[in-house]
Amino acid sequence: MKQNITRKVLQSHLIEGKMVAGEEISIKIDQTLTQDATGTMAYLSFEALGLPKVRTEVSVSYVDHNTLQAGFENADDHAFLQTISEKYGIYYSRPGNGICHQVHSERFAVPGKTLLGSDSHTPTSSALGMIAIGAGGMSVAMAMAGQPFPLVMPKVINVKLTGKLYPGVAAKDIILELLKRMTVKNGVGKIIEYTGPGVETLSIPERCTITNMGAELGVTTSIFPSDDITYEFMKAQGREKDWKELKADEDAEYDELIEINLDELGPLVAKPHMPDKVVPVKEVNDIKVSQVFIGSCTNASYLDLAKAAAILDGKSVHKDVSLSISPGSKQVFEMIARDGILLKLISAGARILESACGPCVGIGQAPQSEGVSLRTNNRNFIGRSGTKDAKVYLASPEVAAASAITGVITDPRDIEDIDLDAIQVIKEPEERILDDRMIVAPKENTEDVVIKRGPNIQPLPLREALEEEINTAVLIKVGDDITTDDIMPAGAKILPLRSNVPAISQYVFNGIDPTFPKRAKENNGGIVVAAENYGQGSSREHAALAPMYLGVKAVLAKSFARIHHDNLINYGILPLRFKDKNDYERINQGDILVIKNVQKQVNNGEFVIVNETQGFEINAYATLSDRQKEVITSGGQLNYIKKLL
Amino acid sequence: MKQNITRKVLQSHLIEGKMVAGEEISIKIDQTLTQDATGTMAYLSFEALGLPKVRTEVSVSYVDHNTLQAGFENADDHAFLQTISEKYGIYYSRPGNGICHQVHSERFAVPGKTLLGSDSHTPTSSALGMIAIGAGGMSVAMAMAGQPFPLVMPKVINVKLTGKLYPGVAAKDIILELLKRMTVKNGVGKIIEYTGPGVETLSIPERCTITNMGAELGVTTSIFPSDDITYEFMKAQGREKDWKELKADEDAEYDELIEINLDELGPLVAKPHMPDKVVPVKEVNDIKVSQVFIGSCTNASYLDLAKAAAILDGKSVHKDVSLSISPGSKQVFEMIARDGILLKLISAGARILESACGPCVGIGQAPQSEGVSLRTNNRNFIGRSGTKDAKVYLASPEVAAASAITGVITDPRDIEDIDLDAIQVIKEPEERILDDRMIVAPKENTEDVVIKRGPNIQPLPLREALEEEINTAVLIKVGDDITTDDIMPAGAKILPLRSNVPAISQYVFNGIDPTFPKRAKENNGGIVVAAENYGQGSSREHAALAPMYLGVKAVLAKSFARIHHDNLINYGILPLRFKDKNDYERINQGDILVIKNVQKQVNNGEFVIVNETQGFEINAYATLSDRQKEVITSGGQLNYIKKLL
Repeated sequence: MKQNITRKVLQSHLIEGKMVAGEEISIKIDQTLTQDATGTMAYLSFEALGLPKVRTEVSVSYVDHNTLQAGFENADDHAFLQTISEKYGIYYSRPGNGICHQVHSERFAVPGKTLLGSDSHTPTSSALGMIAIGAGGMSVAMAMAGQPFPLVMPKVINVKLTGKLYPGVAAKDIILELLKRMTVKNGVGKIIEYTGPGVETLSIPERCTITNMGAELGVTTSIFPSDDITYEFMKAQGREKDWKELKADEDAEYDELIEINLDELGPLVAKPHMPDKVVPVKEVNDIKVSQVFIGSCTNASYLDLAKAAAILDGKSVHKDVSLSISPGSKQVFEMIARDGILLKLISAGARILESACGPCVGIGQAPQSEGVSLRTNNRNFIGRSGTKDAKVYLASPEVAAASAITGVITDPRDIEDIDLDAIQVIKEPEERILDDRMIVAPKENTEDVVIKRGPNIQPLPLREALEEEINTAVLIKVGDDITTDDIMPAGAKILPLRSNVPAISQYVFNGIDPTFPKRAKENNGGIVVAAENYGQGSSREHAALAPMYLGVKAVLAKSFARIHHDNLINYGILPLRFKDKNDYERINQGDILVIKNVQKQVNNGEFVIVNETQGFEINAYATLSDRQKEVITSGGQLNYIKKLL
Repeated sequence: MKQNITRKVLQSHLIEGKMVAGEEISIKIDQTLTQDATGTMAYLSFEALGLPKVRTEVSVSYVDHNTLQAGFENADDHAFLQTISEKYGIYYSRPGNGICHQVHSERFAVPGKTLLGSDSHTPTSSALGMIAIGAGGMSVAMAMAGQPFPLVMPKVINVKLTGKLYPGVAAKDIILELLKRMTVKNGVGKIIEYTGPGVETLSIPERCTITNMGAELGVTTSIFPSDDITYEFMKAQGREKDWKELKADEDAEYDELIEINLDELGPLVAKPHMPDKVVPVKEVNDIKVSQVFIGSCTNASYLDLAKAAAILDGKSVHKDVSLSISPGSKQVFEMIARDGILLKLISAGARILESACGPCVGIGQAPQSEGVSLRTNNRNFIGRSGTKDAKVYLASPEVAAASAITGVITDPRDIEDIDLDAIQVIKEPEERILDDRMIVAPKENTEDVVIKRGPNIQPLPLREALEEEINTAVLIKVGDDITTDDIMPAGAKILPLRSNVPAISQYVFNGIDPTFPKRAKENNGGIVVAAENYGQGSSREHAALAPMYLGVKAVLAKSFARIHHDNLINYGILPLRFKDKNDYERINQGDILVIKNVQKQVNNGEFVIVNETQGFEINAYATLSDRQKEVITSGGQLNYIKKLL
């Protein structure tokens, strides 16, 4: 069989299983990454395993989310992460060093390797030809312990790029086009592989924008070949030794084919409140914006900011717009300072923020009430900006910069005196500033390291082993496309509690029904009923961990997003699916559901649920591998692995 | 009589009264400024007066405090401030343009003029030879309405500077030395005038550091002569036309003399938790720091950051230290970007924050639990950093930069390879970047301006007219030096509620006794008992306004800080002082105090308070001018002025 890149990399890391789409396989993980909002839990899990050091080639702990430090919590987390990293042989990227995916692609990503990261945008590094996958912190902890990572062998989609982007059109528009076609629902169980002559027209940062937002498609990851462009990028990073070529065999086979002709693309924008609500900029170009944000792991490379600066050069941010810009990494920040790009941005009136995730995940720069915010980041879920009634649009840095000038959503091609031809050929700088001083490297002897645990670091709660009978109420019934932001909100107020499960669990479903935690407690737990694509979006395991802490025993849904499905299992919550999706309509909040002989049903994968309140039966199933069945039986991944080790 | 500068400026603005120390005078106010955390209330007060435009020469509304935007509140405030500024002929300095005092000294301060600002560090601009005074927002509203500003004619202290600072010693050390000598208690009712040959050795930014922290001494303001150095600074700002010379007559008279020989100063540091706990750096130089902050209205000029960068150049921030830096203004930010200074700071590992107040007032960058933070700002009150048990030290940018490198509090003279001689002669740049595009100027026709009022903008609560009898409980009894931070905390969580008095009043005395608001409500108000220097620190009128909203009728104290005393009167709370300070000891929290015939006692200025619970009488007094008596009788300034207009 002619091999595609995806299968080549998976094959070279295969530990168990057959590479047949839909079957569970497990693969060796070479590298891991965590960010601070998911990292504290990942390291508490790893610590509970009792190993002296991580067993990966490279593990990196980044701090990029909780950097506002509105109270002691963030800095306590940083001190914990720094000391536990030192203890267990993990690289520690200090606050200010940048966003994990930007830094990882610059300094650590290696073609042909595997990376597991406790952040849903981990696939960003797959732009360099690796298999980089997002997962919950618990899964990353297991990978750090040297455990193979289990996943369902995905289908491989060939996204064939032809042509070349016109001036004013950006890599962002490629992935927005794909979101328009595939929506956020149709990527589950798939990996995208980019092929075709259009690939050669795209630089690494542009490829990163595309692989980054693969997360919004729901795909496991998105991979580019490792080619001359990859080589040049790695050479500029002083890492050409780690480069190797990686390309698909001629006539390699794929499960699906999608063709995108870059010549045909124009500037696009995703409308509120979902990244797949994509329309041409022209359709919305009379809408006033009160805020523009250029940054995030999607679009904060040197190239992105250089292009934005070229548009803003000599112009002013519109008086009714707040433009904030956050460079993706210290490397980017230094280089835009060196090359006069930063000066142009400040001069035009941009508010320069620290190099971090920031506004993308609602950590600062919340828009005004009912404000329209145009952003270059990857998600525009309702409330994620920190302002519940704000309307967030997603677009390229070029559209963002143009809109900041005019005060309305603007196609950059409509501003007459901007030379888009010149902007289109801006390149990453030949001379990079390479400086890893903000990354604390692992050292040999770590016996004397004392792990700092401030009052914000609370022990990891564990679930008991599986009950023989579940007899409890439906605590909440929710609709389609519920995101992990809906389940466990982020933002500047709640994120600082990520290391403190008792505290953060008080915000579960806060935007949908703030009484949920109280009702869960009064009821001593319960069941969540959901429709399609439950748990899409961020990889945050707190969307499983906090409900588990509140006593949630099962989620009964029409379908699940991949990472969240794994997270539920990791924390011992049953992920049940309706056999007949029409049954969803028949259940009401408050209904008492009973599952008897739970263990037996787990073993079968088939479930009969009795709705005692209304007196009917529901047939359900769970797609659990043998290993996952044991995890559920044990009451979660940590209990399971502890038994194994 | 040979006139000093203070008397010359006051004389030229005198409206009423005799310039005899201790007597109330009133002066014409030429300029006003507000910042966003006090500005919303100031403009609501101004609006309530019903005037079409401000009646000052220049009024500026700055946004520099609430810039994190963790929720919709901050951006709502910004939109309100921008539109109400436009409506009433006020300059609006947009978020990102910088800290009010830095920008005001650059772009608006004029020798010989008067400035009233709703921020306690307004005296910063007096470095240019103006009389700049901090006041509550209500007082600033009155000034915007063209009302003369009433104040007690202060004594004038001659602080005579001789000699010249040695390398490694900074302007900050001059004001820290003065704080050591005068403490935070002995400045009330005084103005400092700097004289002597040492004055000529100090640049405008250095003078600004000194006048800025006059606020910590409690003085009304601190003034420097307007000399050639002032001329050169204003010329560089393109404002030489506004310059005029201002110097004291030879042998001018002063009420007090303090001499400081700059030759004798070394690097100093203020220990936790008060700016007057000053010791030489040598005494504390083994203390580990976890955080360093260089910024704030005290020390974020080009000169400050250039010197810090020269120390950090080629070095690394210690691995256990987080160094954050916030430039004082957009002008500073642009110039350090242009001149390669910013690059050095980023390279060394500094976390660059937006140009704003930020960490100084607990808006972000809260230290870790029990962390030691060394900062260049002006206040180190307990809890102000956002972390209750953090220990904050204050020092110069030179000490801060040196300590960031070593990880312990460090005298920069102890780092061998730093050329402090070269650093001492660093100058402000000859070529300034002058760009006021981030300041929205007033326009003629404002009839069509619609003021934006998001849900965070709540109407200004008013007090009823004075009661004939006060019969209520002592709600709380507090000690010496209670700050307005103690009364009405700031920080990232509470500051966003500044435009919403019902919401923010739930945090009154939060750090001392969080049950206060509940108890006040249950008791339908009450009385606060305090010791010396009650209400020192920030000018925030919320420390009077929110207690008034909770029903506080009087504060009975040994003594008051000036601005807070005025704020209490502005909101109709009686500021009563013990005749016999020993009576303070005899009162307990919960005692019922009764004042009969209140109006008559206000008129006399003498009060008999019956402690009904314990059965004894307390003699008290209030230092109220005739105008202030009418204000109290009316139930506050706004009621009073409305009657007048």
